[in-house]
Amino acid sequence: MTTVSEYLFHRLHSLGVQHIFGVPGDYVLDLMDVLTQTPINLICNCNELNAGYAADAYARVKGLGAVCITYGVGGFSLVNAVVGAYAERVPLVVISGAPNSSVKKTNLLLHHTTGDYNLQLSIMEKITVAAVSLTIASQAANQIDQALAACLHYKRPVYIEIPLDLVHQPCHVPQGKLYSSLKLTTPETLPEALEEAVEEAVELLNKAHLPVILAGVEFHRFNLEKQLLQLLATTGYPVATTMLGKSCISEMHPQFIGNYVGALSRDNVRQRIETADCVLCLGAIMSDMNLGIYTADLNAHKLINANSEKVKIKHHFYQPVYLGDFIDGLINKLHKKDAQTLDFTPAADVIATSFTPQPENKLTNGRFYERINHFLEDACIVISDTGDAIISTMDLLMPEETDFIGQAFYLSIGYSIPACLGAAMADRDRRPIIFVGDGAFQMTAQELSTIIRHRLNPIIFLINNDGYTIERVIKDGLYNDIQPWKYHQIPQIFGESWSCEVSTEGELEIALAQAKVNTECVSLIEIHLDRFDCSPGLMRLGEAMSKK
Amino acid sequence: MTTVSEYLFHRLHSLGVQHIFGVPGDYVLDLMDVLTQTPINLICNCNELNAGYAADAYARVKGLGAVCITYGVGGFSLVNAVVGAYAERVPLVVISGAPNSSVKKTNLLLHHTTGDYNLQLSIMEKITVAAVSLTIASQAANQIDQALAACLHYKRPVYIEIPLDLVHQPCHVPQGKLYSSLKLTTPETLPEALEEAVEEAVELLNKAHLPVILAGVEFHRFNLEKQLLQLLATTGYPVATTMLGKSCISEMHPQFIGNYVGALSRDNVRQRIETADCVLCLGAIMSDMNLGIYTADLNAHKLINANSEKVKIKHHFYQPVYLGDFIDGLINKLHKKDAQTLDFTPAADVIATSFTPQPENKLTNGRFYERINHFLEDACIVISDTGDAIISTMDLLMPEETDFIGQAFYLSIGYSIPACLGAAMADRDRRPIIFVGDGAFQMTAQELSTIIRHRLNPIIFLINNDGYTIERVIKDGLYNDIQPWKYHQIPQIFGESWSCEVSTEGELEIALAQAKVNTECVSLIEIHLDRFDCSPGLMRLGEAMSKK
Repeated sequence: MTTVSEYLFHRLHSLGVQHIFGVPGDYVLDLMDVLTQTPINLICNCNELNAGYAADAYARVKGLGAVCITYGVGGFSLVNAVVGAYAERVPLVVISGAPNSSVKKTNLLLHHTTGDYNLQLSIMEKITVAAVSLTIASQAANQIDQALAACLHYKRPVYIEIPLDLVHQPCHVPQGKLYSSLKLTTPETLPEALEEAVEEAVELLNKAHLPVILAGVEFHRFNLEKQLLQLLATTGYPVATTMLGKSCISEMHPQFIGNYVGALSRDNVRQRIETADCVLCLGAIMSDMNLGIYTADLNAHKLINANSEKVKIKHHFYQPVYLGDFIDGLINKLHKKDAQTLDFTPAADVIATSFTPQPENKLTNGRFYERINHFLEDACIVISDTGDAIISTMDLLMPEETDFIGQAFYLSIGYSIPACLGAAMADRDRRPIIFVGDGAFQMTAQELSTIIRHRLNPIIFLINNDGYTIERVIKDGLYNDIQPWKYHQIPQIFGESWSCEVSTEGELEIALAQAKVNTECVSLIEIHLDRFDCSPGLMRLGEAMSKK
Repeated sequence: MTTVSEYLFHRLHSLGVQHIFGVPGDYVLDLMDVLTQTPINLICNCNELNAGYAADAYARVKGLGAVCITYGVGGFSLVNAVVGAYAERVPLVVISGAPNSSVKKTNLLLHHTTGDYNLQLSIMEKITVAAVSLTIASQAANQIDQALAACLHYKRPVYIEIPLDLVHQPCHVPQGKLYSSLKLTTPETLPEALEEAVEEAVELLNKAHLPVILAGVEFHRFNLEKQLLQLLATTGYPVATTMLGKSCISEMHPQFIGNYVGALSRDNVRQRIETADCVLCLGAIMSDMNLGIYTADLNAHKLINANSEKVKIKHHFYQPVYLGDFIDGLINKLHKKDAQTLDFTPAADVIATSFTPQPENKLTNGRFYERINHFLEDACIVISDTGDAIISTMDLLMPEETDFIGQAFYLSIGYSIPACLGAAMADRDRRPIIFVGDGAFQMTAQELSTIIRHRLNPIIFLINNDGYTIERVIKDGLYNDIQPWKYHQIPQIFGESWSCEVSTEGELEIALAQAKVNTECVSLIEIHLDRFDCSPGLMRLGEAMSKK
């Protein structure tokens, strides 16, 4: 015997959740009291949207994340974080307190609500793969397990609403396989469909002279990174990753050629992918941004496209076929091709071997990121915010054991600062390195204070180019101007921290050296760039789009 | 002939909208380009939730407000602002850009979406009184008018989604009455029901010795303030207002006795309302907070409760009966009662006539607000954030021509700073005076920069009591702690401004004198209070609730 709330937190803890993000409010205080008695740490955020983003990033690193908020004002404030997690397949558990169950039968107008006690659930149902409002204690454990199973199975958000009167009600711990299978749940495979799909794919790949693998984010979400390494070892094929899939394989791997994002890619990557005679695309979400706003040229006739639940070859589908099973099938049947004939250059060879700062020179976007390629060390977590920051980081090579996190499909600006908090909590051994533009920073700036509060030590590069530069490239107008803040002075307002501003290559060198040794608190470096000085990637993309 | 987007902005401008709040994003840039060519000013916010709050407050002052945001990431970020407007009957128009209409027929995964191009509309349908995605240019003008009519009729939010390909399409300006009637739309009345309702109410009121009026927010929303004055002149009855209805009548009016919020009220107000033998409750939303978390004692047998669309007496309803018509009926039939027999004290007489600062004394909550009662001048806009700030301001007497704004029913914390921006834009002649707690401030702090950017001159009292004090009263825990910021240093980070911190009564005097003359930019005064030093109102409420 346990209680409903203890059961929920026990389950989450067993599944690896050690931190839950949230904001208190009276409908959730009882639940939070229980939470603080468990081994899970409650990390309170400045607002709920930020809590949602933090939990999302936590889930990307740990495989499961949770956010706990109050009813109405809390739940409705983090809708955008939940939709983002849905789009990018992030296993996020949204836990909401709620008024007593008895209220549902009344016309009472309680604060934080409109008087419609089904509204929050009905909205969450649309943006999660399982949404449940607990009503009967004896069923609560099963309802919780089913929601968590859906979260892990589909790698998408779920919603659990706990009315005040349910929090302390006793419930039985279910026996048997539901719980033990929670971690093991994977998408289904129809063996016959798998066999046929593998056979057809192998034939196409064996015939090809210049095959290439394009790997996406699902390797990371479904823990298939090791199988990708095996596939590379078996075949010798070169591999590129999508923008969202960046870092699903070590970028120092000798077969890794770079990130493929259509026209936004480095020229050699684009050329190798688009001249391949067979593209084995695995676990990629085919979104517009992932495809370089549809500048990508992936001819369907030479494309094998497998994702978590099906395989598409040319214009036909094999379904249900789980990505992991499909890759195993390929590993068993494919043979190694000669590296000489495969014609590719490892990404690590494309980066210049050294960087010589020109101390007096004004810093430019291109030179800044070039320098960063020589600054990043092994085992960190790189997070880029939406805008030119995420585009620029496509030209950064991730060192060993380094994860890249960015909302490369949903592209909600303001994600990176709360995400930094989430990622840092998820893995205290790897230092987060953040790239965030001034516009994005203004969206969620206050969450920097939570990072400082918990004495985390990320290095934050705040790229101040005086407004929404990526939008200026698309269409300029006064709406792209923002209020110029004294960004580098903000950390001191929030607490103990170190920060500075730089405009020249020489100043950057000094700042980088200081940030490197400042491992005890936040380092924020404000980088001044001209307002139209955007990344080479964005320029390549803009050029290709204007030609279209 | 005009275009779809020009038509929309033309309509809004004709209805008094001179500012639209928003955040740019690529699906809405074309629409914003059109907007910037109209007489309406586009005010860009730091994030969409803040834009929603600003537009909400603008609507509270001007009678209509609008927010313009990009698709997906924009629309989903302001859900909480829309729900708040729905709950508190605020006429807010949400305008969203959207991808080209043709996308709806495809499986394309565009950035800022999940690939479901009905999702945003289907969520907005649940939280507005009209939600439309424009699809055919020839129907657009009528669809826009119908949505705006619903907004003005119900005083609740509506949603208008404009796909990129519709923005510049030509459309006809509709002829005839729909447009001209937009401003005139009011709820319906069934004459027979009205007559019966008035008759029954008049009989009850005539029999009563100690009648009293309790007036709510709908006087303000439906522009019925003048009728309330007439009713008071006709009857001589004393009047109290609810928390949400505060300032719907001048608080200097000789018949105004105070705010009635159950146990939270000043004792003399509570006593007068609860011993009345007939309470004429007009235009009030009977929410838990408005009723002092149900500590209010309003016996149904002596209650006449009229709101915008119906009249309830004891346990029966007259419907449809529009509030304005009901009041007119009462004015025609009621007679003046002798002020002597009505036994009440005007609120203005309850406030001490003078305040003598004790310069060395540490400032307390009670003394601070007492002092403010002698600081407020005529013709300002007072905005209180959720928490002890809004409760404390129930003991503030609003001077002549002063509006009070607060989310007294929905109670979303963080509303006040963006609302300050909205209210200041809506009426540049009245100075906003803001009361915001430290916890609430952290939610939406960045919007202070937009206030500074536009050189607005509110006085912001930031009550720093080191955490969520109102929650500490309900249930204390570590979750009520927040990171202590150097709040008074923040304005300088954002731009030209004046700010200071005060801990004693003497320091407060100096700060108030400076703020009064600093009419050219923001004044932010950080008020240091002890963490358990809460308002007399909250103490009264807590005491009553613990007795229950």
